[in-house]
Amino acid sequence: MTEKRSEISQLGEFGLIERIKGNVQLGNKTSLFGIGDDAAVIGAGDESILLCTDMLTEGVHFDLSYTPLQHLGYKAVVVNVSDIAAMNGRPEQIVVSLGLSNRFSVEAVDMLYEGIRAACKNYNVDLVGGDTTSSASGLVISIAALGRVNKNKVTYRSGAKVNDIVCVTGDLGGAYIGLQILERNKQEFLANPEMKPQLENFEYMVGRQLKPEARMDIIFELAELGIQPTAMIDISDGLASELLHISKNSGVGIKIFEDKIPIDSKVYETAAIELNIDPVTCALNGGEDYELLFTINQSDFEKIKNHQDIHFIGHVHDNARQNLLITKQGTPIPIQAQGWNHFRET
Amino acid sequence: MTEKRSEISQLGEFGLIERIKGNVQLGNKTSLFGIGDDAAVIGAGDESILLCTDMLTEGVHFDLSYTPLQHLGYKAVVVNVSDIAAMNGRPEQIVVSLGLSNRFSVEAVDMLYEGIRAACKNYNVDLVGGDTTSSASGLVISIAALGRVNKNKVTYRSGAKVNDIVCVTGDLGGAYIGLQILERNKQEFLANPEMKPQLENFEYMVGRQLKPEARMDIIFELAELGIQPTAMIDISDGLASELLHISKNSGVGIKIFEDKIPIDSKVYETAAIELNIDPVTCALNGGEDYELLFTINQSDFEKIKNHQDIHFIGHVHDNARQNLLITKQGTPIPIQAQGWNHFRET
Repeated sequence: MTEKRSEISQLGEFGLIERIKGNVQLGNKTSLFGIGDDAAVIGAGDESILLCTDMLTEGVHFDLSYTPLQHLGYKAVVVNVSDIAAMNGRPEQIVVSLGLSNRFSVEAVDMLYEGIRAACKNYNVDLVGGDTTSSASGLVISIAALGRVNKNKVTYRSGAKVNDIVCVTGDLGGAYIGLQILERNKQEFLANPEMKPQLENFEYMVGRQLKPEARMDIIFELAELGIQPTAMIDISDGLASELLHISKNSGVGIKIFEDKIPIDSKVYETAAIELNIDPVTCALNGGEDYELLFTINQSDFEKIKNHQDIHFIGHVHDNARQNLLITKQGTPIPIQAQGWNHFRET
Repeated sequence: MTEKRSEISQLGEFGLIERIKGNVQLGNKTSLFGIGDDAAVIGAGDESILLCTDMLTEGVHFDLSYTPLQHLGYKAVVVNVSDIAAMNGRPEQIVVSLGLSNRFSVEAVDMLYEGIRAACKNYNVDLVGGDTTSSASGLVISIAALGRVNKNKVTYRSGAKVNDIVCVTGDLGGAYIGLQILERNKQEFLANPEMKPQLENFEYMVGRQLKPEARMDIIFELAELGIQPTAMIDISDGLASELLHISKNSGVGIKIFEDKIPIDSKVYETAAIELNIDPVTCALNGGEDYELLFTINQSDFEKIKNHQDIHFIGHVHDNARQNLLITKQGTPIPIQAQGWNHFRET
């Protein structure tokens, strides 16, 4: 083509989504919410049905030289369950589309489905269909999930209010560090095939990367405690990127404190000592932790203030242009999204 | 791996689906029907929600050297709409997952979405979300669709009854012939790049291949006439394959008559004269026509006997092992599924 050519890498994933969204109108009355949150929201009487999809492609999202197929199947389900959780919903069904190159055997497909079934069992999700086809090149897994939630309990990215408390579950940065360890190991192995994998000290991080979990436990606990977050998103692209989504969608600013960001001690040590990278940067921009980031009204704080796995990292204010990280030294730094741009320049 | 290795090509797509299905149980009460029809059926009060997915991969389902991106986007929606139609439902929402290699520009993505939006408009479907990611190799499009139908009107493959009439919409074999023409043209072009494409006489078939339509018009007409098919399936793999699905799922036998199979005169001529292949074989095994195959109770025949675009090709009998094509000469031939095995041997 001799026409204008713009590179996707310049636009980025979010720019591309905005471009697609700009041309879309919703016509059916059951289409309550379309593009722009963790899942679409479909009307179904007193309940809303949530619909989301995620595609994992070989060589971009996973490297089969160190990713067991069972784990990959498990993770492919988890990333969708996490999107349903982020809308405050319960996942109920998935359909799985597989593109398989002919280097995959029936036994390999069995292993992949073993992981898919394990995740389905763990999260009470039913595998109800899919499409299995061949692919001219690598493995592609695309899963779509349906979830359900009372129509008044749907939690969007857009509901954060001034003075809300910013909460994050679990700990961050582990999945990214796990990936760095796996990649380092792979490079060492390629240089010296007799090398034995050295993963003993890194099991936690490697597990976070290869077999993450979705925080449905937190969704159920919040429901039991009678807490509905005002805004919520799952942390797939890194804390910074997700904070900015809530800020933008809610029209508010967010201030978080560096010393409140939950980082596991093993993650911290491995980042700082073993890999010589800043652990906080990993938490902010690493991604793939699949923890939940949410905001609550201050009146709900008492109910969860002693929760072992929910961390209060900051609060919401009214200046949407001011999203700040307050460092340990008290210095305010603007939060910037690096996220994870998988549309790399060639 | 030194373990046992079985090739997917030996099992085939349907064998693989059976293998996957064998290990799956449904746990949620909203999961009314899982793997094994054109779409899964999800309970939602008086209505049922239909969920289906289809993945198209470059080099397997489409060749970008002769497939305009707008048509590809259109077709990717249509194949899903067709699955919803085959359950007697109305499509309402889709989510689109794209895997893009870096040879795709923003403008190319725009063209793809132009086709997606055109199909959405045509079939009253809302694009409510998706995932856009990079792919290490070719283009992958995976769409999941939601449809809706009154819970008593869901039409499965399994409802055909003895003495029902077998109906097929439109005409068959055209999409396959279109593909042969496009492939022949491509080979000629590769041999002689100065050759001009010779597609004038083949527009109908090429259109059937590149820009098929789903038969929602028939679904609406049947509803208006008060006809609910006893069984239905869309013709994506070829008439023979789909007939056998209805036979197997309904536990009945089907007898069809060669001279009743609808084949357009241009398709017939092009197959027989231009390509020297049997037009009836194309209709039986060609696939991708996206017409509807359904069975009706004899009492409904009067209502549609004069319909211009519904053809009555045979009837249902009680011997599930006897699926027969009666040739023009009156000879019965067992119907065998060749379908379209995209898991080819290497």
